[in-house]
Amino acid sequence: MQRYKAIVEYDGTGLAGWQAQKSPAMPTVQEFIEEAIFKFCQETVRVQCSGRTDAGVHARGQVIHFDLEAERELYKIQHGINYHLENKPTALLNIEKVHAEFNARFDAKKRYYRYHIINRQAPLVLEKNRAWCIHKELDIPAMREAAGFLVGQHDFSSFRAAECQANSPIKTLDKISISQEGDTVYIDVEGLSFLHNMVRNIVGTLKLVGEGKWQPADVKKALEAKDRCAAGPTAPACGLYFMKVDY
Amino acid sequence: MQRYKAIVEYDGTGLAGWQAQKSPAMPTVQEFIEEAIFKFCQETVRVQCSGRTDAGVHARGQVIHFDLEAERELYKIQHGINYHLENKPTALLNIEKVHAEFNARFDAKKRYYRYHIINRQAPLVLEKNRAWCIHKELDIPAMREAAGFLVGQHDFSSFRAAECQANSPIKTLDKISISQEGDTVYIDVEGLSFLHNMVRNIVGTLKLVGEGKWQPADVKKALEAKDRCAAGPTAPACGLYFMKVDY
Repeated sequence: MQRYKAIVEYDGTGLAGWQAQKSPAMPTVQEFIEEAIFKFCQETVRVQCSGRTDAGVHARGQVIHFDLEAERELYKIQHGINYHLENKPTALLNIEKVHAEFNARFDAKKRYYRYHIINRQAPLVLEKNRAWCIHKELDIPAMREAAGFLVGQHDFSSFRAAECQANSPIKTLDKISISQEGDTVYIDVEGLSFLHNMVRNIVGTLKLVGEGKWQPADVKKALEAKDRCAAGPTAPACGLYFMKVDY
Repeated sequence: MQRYKAIVEYDGTGLAGWQAQKSPAMPTVQEFIEEAIFKFCQETVRVQCSGRTDAGVHARGQVIHFDLEAERELYKIQHGINYHLENKPTALLNIEKVHAEFNARFDAKKRYYRYHIINRQAPLVLEKNRAWCIHKELDIPAMREAAGFLVGQHDFSSFRAAECQANSPIKTLDKISISQEGDTVYIDVEGLSFLHNMVRNIVGTLKLVGEGKWQPADVKKALEAKDRCAAGPTAPACGLYFMKVDY
């Protein structure tokens, strides 16, 4: 038995997210990969991921682990699984052998998410389902000032989905940076782990600041309220990308 | 009567390209825009573009002109046409009034195209239909050296599609630059005008150099042969973007 670690890219559009569902209305990334592995080598495996993503969220660097009985060269495993992923919006970018105790979820040291905004009047075309289109011109310096209040260890209850299963609302946000390239705005977030919808709730709140509806200091007040109702709405899933995991 | 100039973005996937077809098997961008204008103001117009693009080619900055009888504010025209473009993969990014003699095609001083390559083993997911996936690692310095032979005024018959309608095969390529960001390679090309498929034929030829099948000097020989058979194959349409026009 050999444990493998793989990096996965997926387009979350039209999917129910990462996790296999009991009554599947929409497909999931986990199902795609487990089915492709079975087609490739007739082994029924359970694939573990570094962090589950919600319906519509994309990944450029989700990390998974799984065990296979059969011995094969790494590139044959990668190509074989990708072949059986066929036209599914999922691919393994890389695969490597890891020790039997490696765990994609529990061994993670840092996770990186990127949120894409396109700030323009016209509806999205080439970035449809790939970004959040915001029409009002965003005040980026104000958003940066507001984001500063969120960095560090805090009780993030104001940015936590009702269905969040984490034991504690206390998380440490290592870094938020906001960058601009033309009419595209990227919000990059780093931390060991996040509450359910935390990144999207932060983005939805920073948008209020960017549009001038909130002052930067209002984000500090929202954080201190420890109440989901005190922060802004949840940003759309289609703008969020799970970028990378450090181990 | 007022003439308008507009900048257009479109996703060429599944389209027959820019130009309205006599017997339409697939829709075209020109039809989308002319239909949306009619729905918006009940005027039947013929929209002229700066440069026709082929089936599957995208645009971030195609330029068009058209005339309208009705007087309206610019943002109402832009929003109105975009509203009627609905779920068509096309949007007007900008619109402005121009003098009655402005011509999107004949007044162009320079056109900019960008070709996207993704250089990796795994099939494309998030960039599916948006780039050319090349598996073999490309030698970018060799591609740059080869591209240097194409800059300037030349007879580009070796890079000209059989169905090209240009009067002369002599064109001036002002600039080619090749840049890399991670596994993405951009080939940026600038010139007043191009032969049919010229950019895609150049990219398909540079790929042979990048893969080590050709030496850079072989591109010079291909150019001098003035024979389409002497150059490389046509790169796929899905990697090509019409970026901008200078007037």
